[in-house]
Amino acid sequence: MKTPVPDYLLEIRNACSVGEDGELASYIPELAAVDPDRFAVSACTLDGVVYTAGDADAEFTIQSMSKPFVYALALRDRGIATVLEKVGVEPSGDAFNEISLEPETGRPENPMINVGAITTHTLVGPPDATEIERDTAVQEGLSAFAGRPLDVDITVLDSELRTAFRNRAMANLVRAGGIIDGDPDEAVRGYTRQCAYRVTVRDLAIMAVTLAAGGVNPVTKERVVSAEVARQVLAVMATCGMYDAAGDWMSTVGIPAKSGVSGGIFGSLPAQVGLGVFSPRLDAHGHSVEGVRAFERMSRDLDLHLMNTAVMDVEVVRSVRVDEATGRRTFRLQGAMTFASAELALRRLAEIPPGVEEVTLDLSRVSSVNTSARRMLLDGMRRLAADGHSVGLADPGNRLPDIDLGGGLHPIRRKAAR
Amino acid sequence: MKTPVPDYLLEIRNACSVGEDGELASYIPELAAVDPDRFAVSACTLDGVVYTAGDADAEFTIQSMSKPFVYALALRDRGIATVLEKVGVEPSGDAFNEISLEPETGRPENPMINVGAITTHTLVGPPDATEIERDTAVQEGLSAFAGRPLDVDITVLDSELRTAFRNRAMANLVRAGGIIDGDPDEAVRGYTRQCAYRVTVRDLAIMAVTLAAGGVNPVTKERVVSAEVARQVLAVMATCGMYDAAGDWMSTVGIPAKSGVSGGIFGSLPAQVGLGVFSPRLDAHGHSVEGVRAFERMSRDLDLHLMNTAVMDVEVVRSVRVDEATGRRTFRLQGAMTFASAELALRRLAEIPPGVEEVTLDLSRVSSVNTSARRMLLDGMRRLAADGHSVGLADPGNRLPDIDLGGGLHPIRRKAAR
Amino acid sequence: MKTPVPDYLLEIRNACSVGEDGELASYIPELAAVDPDRFAVSACTLDGVVYTAGDADAEFTIQSMSKPFVYALALRDRGIATVLEKVGVEPSGDAFNEISLEPETGRPENPMINVGAITTHTLVGPPDATEIERDTAVQEGLSAFAGRPLDVDITVLDSELRTAFRNRAMANLVRAGGIIDGDPDEAVRGYTRQCAYRVTVRDLAIMAVTLAAGGVNPVTKERVVSAEVARQVLAVMATCGMYDAAGDWMSTVGIPAKSGVSGGIFGSLPAQVGLGVFSPRLDAHGHSVEGVRAFERMSRDLDLHLMNTAVMDVEVVRSVRVDEATGRRTFRLQGAMTFASAELALRRLAEIPPGVEEVTLDLSRVSSVNTSARRMLLDGMRRLAADGHSVGLADPGNRLPDIDLGGGLHPIRRKAAR
Amino acid sequence: MKTPVPDYLLEIRNACSVGEDGELASYIPELAAVDPDRFAVSACTLDGVVYTAGDADAEFTIQSMSKPFVYALALRDRGIATVLEKVGVEPSGDAFNEISLEPETGRPENPMINVGAITTHTLVGPPDATEIERDTAVQEGLSAFAGRPLDVDITVLDSELRTAFRNRAMANLVRAGGIIDGDPDEAVRGYTRQCAYRVTVRDLAIMAVTLAAGGVNPVTKERVVSAEVARQVLAVMATCGMYDAAGDWMSTVGIPAKSGVSGGIFGSLPAQVGLGVFSPRLDAHGHSVEGVRAFERMSRDLDLHLMNTAVMDVEVVRSVRVDEATGRRTFRLQGAMTFASAELALRRLAEIPPGVEEVTLDLSRVSSVNTSARRMLLDGMRRLAADGHSVGLADPGNRLPDIDLGGGLHPIRRKAAR
Repeated sequence: MKTPVPDYLLEIRNACSVGEDGELASYIPELAAVDPDRFAVSACTLDGVVYTAGDADAEFTIQSMSKPFVYALALRDRGIATVLEKVGVEPSGDAFNEISLEPETGRPENPMINVGAITTHTLVGPPDATEIERDTAVQEGLSAFAGRPLDVDITVLDSELRTAFRNRAMANLVRAGGIIDGDPDEAVRGYTRQCAYRVTVRDLAIMAVTLAAGGVNPVTKERVVSAEVARQVLAVMATCGMYDAAGDWMSTVGIPAKSGVSGGIFGSLPAQVGLGVFSPRLDAHGHSVEGVRAFERMSRDLDLHLMNTAVMDVEVVRSVRVDEATGRRTFRLQGAMTFASAELALRRLAEIPPGVEEVTLDLSRVSSVNTSARRMLLDGMRRLAADGHSVGLADPGNRLPDIDLGGGLHPIRRKAAR
Repeated sequence: MKTPVPDYLLEIRNACSVGEDGELASYIPELAAVDPDRFAVSACTLDGVVYTAGDADAEFTIQSMSKPFVYALALRDRGIATVLEKVGVEPSGDAFNEISLEPETGRPENPMINVGAITTHTLVGPPDATEIERDTAVQEGLSAFAGRPLDVDITVLDSELRTAFRNRAMANLVRAGGIIDGDPDEAVRGYTRQCAYRVTVRDLAIMAVTLAAGGVNPVTKERVVSAEVARQVLAVMATCGMYDAAGDWMSTVGIPAKSGVSGGIFGSLPAQVGLGVFSPRLDAHGHSVEGVRAFERMSRDLDLHLMNTAVMDVEVVRSVRVDEATGRRTFRLQGAMTFASAELALRRLAEIPPGVEEVTLDLSRVSSVNTSARRMLLDGMRRLAADGHSVGLADPGNRLPDIDLGGGLHPIRRKAAR
Repeated sequence: MKTPVPDYLLEIRNACSVGEDGELASYIPELAAVDPDRFAVSACTLDGVVYTAGDADAEFTIQSMSKPFVYALALRDRGIATVLEKVGVEPSGDAFNEISLEPETGRPENPMINVGAITTHTLVGPPDATEIERDTAVQEGLSAFAGRPLDVDITVLDSELRTAFRNRAMANLVRAGGIIDGDPDEAVRGYTRQCAYRVTVRDLAIMAVTLAAGGVNPVTKERVVSAEVARQVLAVMATCGMYDAAGDWMSTVGIPAKSGVSGGIFGSLPAQVGLGVFSPRLDAHGHSVEGVRAFERMSRDLDLHLMNTAVMDVEVVRSVRVDEATGRRTFRLQGAMTFASAELALRRLAEIPPGVEEVTLDLSRVSSVNTSARRMLLDGMRRLAADGHSVGLADPGNRLPDIDLGGGLHPIRRKAAR
Repeated sequence: MKTPVPDYLLEIRNACSVGEDGELASYIPELAAVDPDRFAVSACTLDGVVYTAGDADAEFTIQSMSKPFVYALALRDRGIATVLEKVGVEPSGDAFNEISLEPETGRPENPMINVGAITTHTLVGPPDATEIERDTAVQEGLSAFAGRPLDVDITVLDSELRTAFRNRAMANLVRAGGIIDGDPDEAVRGYTRQCAYRVTVRDLAIMAVTLAAGGVNPVTKERVVSAEVARQVLAVMATCGMYDAAGDWMSTVGIPAKSGVSGGIFGSLPAQVGLGVFSPRLDAHGHSVEGVRAFERMSRDLDLHLMNTAVMDVEVVRSVRVDEATGRRTFRLQGAMTFASAELALRRLAEIPPGVEEVTLDLSRVSSVNTSARRMLLDGMRRLAADGHSVGLADPGNRLPDIDLGGGLHPIRRKAAR
């Protein structure tokens, strides 16, 4: 059997081909010379399998899609608090190239608009990094997200630099406001370079899933940034990634995403999937026409939406086995343990009548336990012990740490429940 | 054993008590006369269990927290497309009472700012509804969300109406722009009435979880709005609910939420939980000081955040059992079946060598199957059959429909896998 | 001989007829039903002679052209300082119906935009005026400016009131901000009524020249407002009268002016002339197409421009006669005495050598003496006396008061110089 | 006798000394190091006499006060139409350093804000001027306005250039929008240099009066720019010169003016006077505190206000002499002949009964005749001749050209009337 997923992507790609709608970016000759009919779609799973459909090997420059990743690098290198002092996180309601600075602080509104991205670029590496050191850090960082060494398209870089007046204006403006230090021209050069890295939709999907997976590239297994940083980047993409259409994108697509003027869009659905598309014809907002359609379709057909409420019939406690002889009760939990599922489990434990002597939690079918669920399960076991129950734990995946149930007692550990 | 969840809420409540920071709303005497020290926290699970801490029975007027629910009623009564023609979904970047109309269309930017909420109010009920019919539809709708009959605080309503000049300005403005029909004063009266319903934090949590659960009130089991409407409301809350701090809220809290000038805030984490807080002292943005702190704390302590990437170690295929005698392979799946988990399962199925005669999917440990996963599993079984395998299905929960595997064949159904 | 001035106006009118460019105002049926080909031009001199060309007797509603006059009435009734607390004087750069309030104070930016005019309307009469008293004060005031009783067009008033949603929005907004007191609907009714008075271009020219002449209607000789009030109104018309084209109007026309949606425009060139035009087809800014052209042409052809620098070859001291016998010197001044001309005169007086015994100032050819010139001439005479000259004064027009030259001496007064 | 004018200025200066209010500009050390107590006032008459009070020889950099003069040079070199394509004339309502570009055209709103002044600077000289040629043209132009060679303060220039990030941002922005050509850095260097010329209040008054006098420096008698250009500059100063306080300045001062961050302000009252002040302590808007006060005082005390309506009692026709013997009537006119005064004169001529044989116009007391008055007087004479009168003209100043009265007849010219 062959998995049907590539066929799904191809089906989506073909259904979203809209022919000659939209216009190529034309402000530099290199972008205007691209084959306008290219169209590729990709997805990367949390464990690093990449599916593609269409012109999957076509290279294009990363452009504004570099912004979330370089923001991640800045957050990693300087810390969230320091970066927040320099760049806000509010949607500006403006187009990508608007100069949206907060009136009081002079901070760029967010790191997804150009002025914010230029500022963010200067925050990669240590405070005293030279231009070359910063460029190197960006290259290494973007390559780590992609899981392969990325290269700059020198021709595009040169063309962009020759017409980068608006970006130069922005760099001087934040320099005037004391938001960035050093030479504004250096910031523009570095930012323009960061936008000129060549990627494919395969790269986009892997980079996207690295954010969705909490900062670890699932192909290389390398941790690129912390889970906290990944979460911050995803949050900012969700509200600011699609510029002046944040609300529309959130309601119709519901996937934190970022597009580039080269025709690419990538999306990261937290803890689920990374997606990439490439089709160079742009709409009036500067987004890929077919790319936007593909995202709308993937969201709908694959149930990929932040606001999905469909997962509701969770049976956290798969069974409660009562040993007729001993009266021992074994609670078999299953699935992912979060606040919601742990709460359900605890509620069932709370129903145990006082007389029961031994109570065992069987986690062998539990797929994951997050921080709050860990605390809740541990608290539940302590309370059971305090109520006089003898507490057992079947935790073959070692999802819970060793704990003291009170009075120096520890749960009876079993490799498996049955 | 008693479940520790109430203790968690109490701990959060106590940790977030900040004493005398913030100011009571004072534009009407009724709000200024509230006991400023009240502080309650609540949570409602997807299956309708409510936990509270603090002054859980204190009543307060729902105020702007009515906006998402009345938006839901308008979407239900007129359809998403019709409502979108009248009210946008983009964050305005402004305070709640700004008059943010889209330059070209004259539409209010979103239904969470007053001008958008006044417009939304006029869209509840059929187009020819009288003022009383519309008021009744709102009352019934809000009561259905809360699962109990809600009443208007007449004193507050009267006070608000006496000083509703700014809302009257907005109503006249959208009337001038042809966005609403009829008498602007009627719209203001209705909107003001909608804001004067009395609720408790218990109500807030139930109303919140009704959205998080896709439109079904888990206490009364009543479907109030469709899952599609609930998703639309949650998306708009996520980008526009906290007015000019949408991005900050998304990154620090990450829970779609809405606050009211009476000091309440509610939050709905899709498919997870509904939350409510009440504490009447307000910050400069008009949000409850302690309420905001409580939400930040709940997000962090309970891992409640849209962008959580922690759930990663999913073992969708719990085991593959190979019958030595027959060579039959049984794939036991577990957890929630989504695009991501179904994809993982299909990948394992794709590894089956051609010679294997019988393949069985055991869904007895699967907790849920969403639309895309259903399609994927069915496609996978069809492909297995097409490859010449004999396909069996253990689906005691009847999560998959009966299907034709091709050639008129159906999978061998078993009640349980083993 | 017949004066050629009417021919000039007719020539300008005919040269500016542009046929079918522009559109009638159509928001109420009454304005849309006007004969679009009407076109009249008028001018009124400082001594009250009115010239007209074209459809001079056609009546139209005064609309926004009432704003400067009602602003004048409010300044008269409440004083400049009080009115400034409620309405600013800065150009808003917006169209007439924009809601431009100053961020900090909530004041309308200026009295020429609707929201400012509505506010201004409420300041006519004493603070405790009833609606009828205020209406009466406005009617009497506008009639005094025009020099004849003006009447309201009831049909227009009714139509306007039925669709006055935007103005009602503004009135509620300034009421919400505490800028106006009382019932916003009353303010809108009064303002709408003020806009519905019927006028002709003859009326416009007289009303205009009453401002240009410092507040005295030159036809009726009635002082309607003080010179200080007139100056304030003219200053605000100069910067705010033509809405978002203040700078363009100042450079190409240079006459403080105000237009109305009925197709009228009036202009007041200080101390020179009042002008009126009427032609109902409007441009995109809501100004009369032919009216704007007529003003441009009048400014150019008749040298009517605030920034005119052409009047330069002033000979203030027409002659200095030296009496051979007595050595007495008589300085004959001529023209209007201002700071500039008095300074010139004083400079000549400063050249008198010490030995001259008697010095006489002959003002018989002086046309006017303003406040600063009066002080300067008196100071000059005192200084001459202090230098030991015997000072004489020929002032048949009694333009200077009786003064003490020092030491109890007074100038020798002569009825005529020679 | 000594003219009292210097005493008036000193009196104003002393009355406006406010001690330590306000702050020195501090963005470069050179401005922060100025003696804060300096305060000088100056005035220059239309015939080139300069009066001063206070520290009249103190030099300071011209800063933003260069903007109107360089605007004048650009208008001279490229024509008004071409410059208008690049820079608008509307008040921006913003502070001096705001980036106010028209949304549709990308033009700076006006030449008085920095971004407009930078653009204007690039329009001095021919289109192909090199940087040095443009700098030279600016230096020569400013020097011609001042009537003496002006020099750049190199220390200030260097300091300004080191921190000119905001101006560099603006230059890049208008370069990006295609408003300026060439290198944005060159534009910033040139503009910064233009702001660094050293002037005194004496220079300011002469430069100011050169505009007020229609472009001719009354000291050197050199025509620097045309009257049309001067008028355009004055109009733009009137609406845009004082940034976000245009309306307030127009109503309280009423003199087209421009201020600089060095503490200078100059004002040009058309056809009347040029004024300059210098006092380095600045208010929150960046205007000299004492300078603003001095202008308010000069406006009030010296009756210097564009909207003055006081000059009203003009007696244009000083006398009509009837020769008993011949019946000849001689109309003696006096003062400045404008549209308003010529109209008065023509009206008197229109009263001549048909039987009168000879009519003479005596212009010997007329101080000036502008274009429209010239046309009107000539038309009046032609009409008199057409009515059968024999027309005489006493015009010792040759203010009217030789004309044909119809039928090849010319007026009888007399050297003097009597």
